[in-house]
Amino acid sequence: YGKNTIKFLRLHKEGKKQFVKEVEVCAHLRLTSPQEYLEGNNSLVIPTDTIKNIVLVLAKKNGISSLEQFAIDICNHFMTTFCQVAYVKAYVQEVPWQRLHEDGVPHIHSFICVPDGIRFCEAEQCRNGPLIVFAGIKDLKLMKTTQSGFEGFYKNEHTTLPERHDRILCGEFFCKWSYGECKDFDFNCIWKQIRECILEAFAGPPDCGEYSPSYQKTVNCIQMLVLSRVPQVQVIEVVLNNTFYNVVDMKNLGLTNDKEVLVPVETPYGSCACTLGRK
Amino acid sequence: YGKNTIKFLRLHKEGKKQFVKEVEVCAHLRLTSPQEYLEGNNSLVIPTDTIKNIVLVLAKKNGISSLEQFAIDICNHFMTTFCQVAYVKAYVQEVPWQRLHEDGVPHIHSFICVPDGIRFCEAEQCRNGPLIVFAGIKDLKLMKTTQSGFEGFYKNEHTTLPERHDRILCGEFFCKWSYGECKDFDFNCIWKQIRECILEAFAGPPDCGEYSPSYQKTVNCIQMLVLSRVPQVQVIEVVLNNTFYNVVDMKNLGLTNDKEVLVPVETPYGSCACTLGRK
Amino acid sequence: YGKNTIKFLRLHKEGKKQFVKEVEVCAHLRLTSPQEYLEGNNSLVIPTDTIKNIVLVLAKKNGISSLEQFAIDICNHFMTTFCQVAYVKAYVQEVPWQRLHEDGVPHIHSFICVPDGIRFCEAEQCRNGPLIVFAGIKDLKLMKTTQSGFEGFYKNEHTTLPERHDRILCGEFFCKWSYGECKDFDFNCIWKQIRECILEAFAGPPDCGEYSPSYQKTVNCIQMLVLSRVPQVQVIEVVLNNTFYNVVDMKNLGLTNDKEVLVPVETPYGSCACTLGRK
Amino acid sequence: YGKNTIKFLRLHKEGKKQFVKEVEVCAHLRLTSPQEYLEGNNSLVIPTDTIKNIVLVLAKKNGISSLEQFAIDICNHFMTTFCQVAYVKAYVQEVPWQRLHEDGVPHIHSFICVPDGIRFCEAEQCRNGPLIVFAGIKDLKLMKTTQSGFEGFYKNEHTTLPERHDRILCGEFFCKWSYGECKDFDFNCIWKQIRECILEAFAGPPDCGEYSPSYQKTVNCIQMLVLSRVPQVQVIEVVLNNTFYNVVDMKNLGLTNDKEVLVPVETPYGSCACTLGRK
Repeated sequence: YGKNTIKFLRLHKEGKKQFVKEVEVCAHLRLTSPQEYLEGNNSLVIPTDTIKNIVLVLAKKNGISSLEQFAIDICNHFMTTFCQVAYVKAYVQEVPWQRLHEDGVPHIHSFICVPDGIRFCEAEQCRNGPLIVFAGIKDLKLMKTTQSGFEGFYKNEHTTLPERHDRILCGEFFCKWSYGECKDFDFNCIWKQIRECILEAFAGPPDCGEYSPSYQKTVNCIQMLVLSRVPQVQVIEVVLNNTFYNVVDMKNLGLTNDKEVLVPVETPYGSCACTLGRK
Repeated sequence: YGKNTIKFLRLHKEGKKQFVKEVEVCAHLRLTSPQEYLEGNNSLVIPTDTIKNIVLVLAKKNGISSLEQFAIDICNHFMTTFCQVAYVKAYVQEVPWQRLHEDGVPHIHSFICVPDGIRFCEAEQCRNGPLIVFAGIKDLKLMKTTQSGFEGFYKNEHTTLPERHDRILCGEFFCKWSYGECKDFDFNCIWKQIRECILEAFAGPPDCGEYSPSYQKTVNCIQMLVLSRVPQVQVIEVVLNNTFYNVVDMKNLGLTNDKEVLVPVETPYGSCACTLGRK
Repeated sequence: YGKNTIKFLRLHKEGKKQFVKEVEVCAHLRLTSPQEYLEGNNSLVIPTDTIKNIVLVLAKKNGISSLEQFAIDICNHFMTTFCQVAYVKAYVQEVPWQRLHEDGVPHIHSFICVPDGIRFCEAEQCRNGPLIVFAGIKDLKLMKTTQSGFEGFYKNEHTTLPERHDRILCGEFFCKWSYGECKDFDFNCIWKQIRECILEAFAGPPDCGEYSPSYQKTVNCIQMLVLSRVPQVQVIEVVLNNTFYNVVDMKNLGLTNDKEVLVPVETPYGSCACTLGRK
Repeated sequence: YGKNTIKFLRLHKEGKKQFVKEVEVCAHLRLTSPQEYLEGNNSLVIPTDTIKNIVLVLAKKNGISSLEQFAIDICNHFMTTFCQVAYVKAYVQEVPWQRLHEDGVPHIHSFICVPDGIRFCEAEQCRNGPLIVFAGIKDLKLMKTTQSGFEGFYKNEHTTLPERHDRILCGEFFCKWSYGECKDFDFNCIWKQIRECILEAFAGPPDCGEYSPSYQKTVNCIQMLVLSRVPQVQVIEVVLNNTFYNVVDMKNLGLTNDKEVLVPVETPYGSCACTLGRK
């Protein structure tokens, strides 16, 4: 199969107010025949350059009301236009431009990049199969400075980790969920709702938090909350790349360190991942 | 000279509420004698490991009330403790953790990383010289989708760029200013004030913006506004790494493109830099 | 499942001659029960820290005769030691240290890092299943300045790419092959042989090369040559991330440019991938 | 001032044999008047696009016989063509394409990227001043697995580092030297000679090496050897970004580890730098 990445900006105006989407689109295609590979016969090959043109033309004609709708548009275009396409996947990712505010007043044409979790989506379709839509958030970095521990784990002669009931929980989240064969969803609204679920499940109530006995359990809490609150989500995958912090031992330096100064442990780092769906 | 980079986390509590600073500190030292280089005589060398310990001990003892105060503490410690140090510079940069909010309520111990401009500072001192403090913001990405042009530039036989009076202005800013020999400044407050000046000078009034005839002029506007509004700033340097966007020519594709779809031009990219001080 | 990354150096001596392997190991584990996720019950969980210790102990005890053997050792250890492990995968990647030579004489203890294609391998096993070994090379950048074209491709109203019969072929290769259920292979020797096949199939005969009608066909040639020359390989996957170069149009500048000056096209970039096995 | 980066490929043929240079050029200009900044008057500004065109035209017309000559050409062009230029600096860096060999036979048009130290150069000139040329190598990673120690350093209450007489010496080198006001040098030949000096001074004799009492002393040895062997070099700056490795303590795991397994220490990392010239 082949894959192509295109970056571009889509502007539009409503009166004098300007709106901007900057996206990176990656289109994957698989053809019905491998003759290009086996025989060097290019007659069915759709060049990267053509794919780029199509994506830009679709952006011009349709705009980007939501990343998901734009990914769906791309899949539909390739499936209906090219009978040699056996499979198409469109991945769309957003540069997180946010409107600038001055003293609370929104600016009509100025934006700031705020990458606190990147929105992305995927639409994919096999010929004669359903069009399936995924959405997600990545590069979302969160930290809890307390209410986290790791105890009661399996121990043997290679175990050196002490049990801890008050550690830092910190990591980068990748969450991706499936909408199934969706139609007429308000993708922008649902995405914001899911982002809030993730933050809420990670952090717990604002006044006291909620104890996390492991990275794994926190991953599961996020999945459970999203599935319970957002009926459009069929399956949700969460990957957490943890950053470990060690309390610095300052005994040699004549000081006690009551979890005040910690250093990140860069090796080893771990990640845990889980995919959870509805019954 | 030698340079060392240390990353760590500093936590503190006020009641049950938790606060966090994650910083990267880089300490530069130059010794009074080059004998370590010329003769392999290490007797004056302060090992990286010792520097790390000192930085962590200072963080433990003093906390990090502001990046600037912490950088000053480091300089003071090295100058007063080690007579073999001829010059010290402490660079401190912050990981932009922000307190999480749920429905507007701040969480007592959960944080999200929001890298919309990274705060940093530097303090430096030569033996018998003044301690000078710099602060700055980097990796700040801003965009204006209109009210920007570039006309009337120098032309010769190698000129192919057309004049434009409605282009995109987009780039990454690095701003660094000097406080001179400061004392008792509220560094956190001043930094926020300067950040707002930068955004305001870049964007112009929220309802209409202000026309920018060049990247260079925008850089100058930022400098002028900061110097006029913030008396503590002595000199300000601004570097702007521009991203150019070209309106896609869609004539071949049978479409007109009225600045709706643009692609980034990755080569060449340019930057402009200027340093401006008071008379 | 969980994943952990550990970096370390393994030294050994033969007489006064020193040998070094620097590797990055990533161990993936899946347990027989998801109780850690669902119930927060950690009693079966093998902490990252324990996995790190095991990998370091295996390196100390067994050395790293080849990346593949080390990956096999890791899989065997986890499968035989922990009955709660349902699946294990060990990925091992090498930092490409090469012995320094002075005037052709090898140095007994000095090395230079030469990253002209990174060697890696994977071993994986499900409980009660076979242990399967993969090996590969990644980040291998190759270029042919002639003997490459792209013609006869599919055209429609979105096609703007001209046909070309003398373009640059340039890209980064990722190749990964399976040895099936291997035993007693000389993995180091086979890996070098496959690397040479890849280079030979890419470049063609040294005096004239071989015409490539497309990236896809070059990918296929590499796969065919490896499968024909190296009987231990069962299946081979090749991914080629192309870099496109455009001949600069210098007509406006009063010059003809006979494929002398070219600029890389950063957007769009494409990749093609293919997996080929034996019948 | 302004800065612009351009990447391109320069091909040429001798008979059927093909040669390639891929370079990244960064041109810095400072104008005689700051009116572009202060008044938004662009009449003296040379657009990025024009600079790109000039660099490409020079590459087309002159070829790239050496990076240094090309940088000199760029400086000369800007100084002689534009009277508004007060200062010009041209930085040129090479993508390390090497000719492929099959069984020792060089291939006429195929290349592999071998980034074992990146060659770069700089030429700079102020109006009415001399043209000065620098050259250098960066991203050169070297390791000695023995014959290195660090003892006799300064100690106080913050010292926790033990003395070591058999540690790993590993790091990334940046070396930059000045040729002064050069003329008619064989830059390609001198560069290779200096690279060999660096490797030789780092490693010592192939059969036994030479003991390094510190990173600093190794930096100095490199500088001394280059200055003594290469008369064209006026001044040489060396920066060494060290990677520290710790022998893993395996006592808790019931094993002795005789410098066989080591882990990189990612924080703190240090660097030492020194500039040395002739009297």
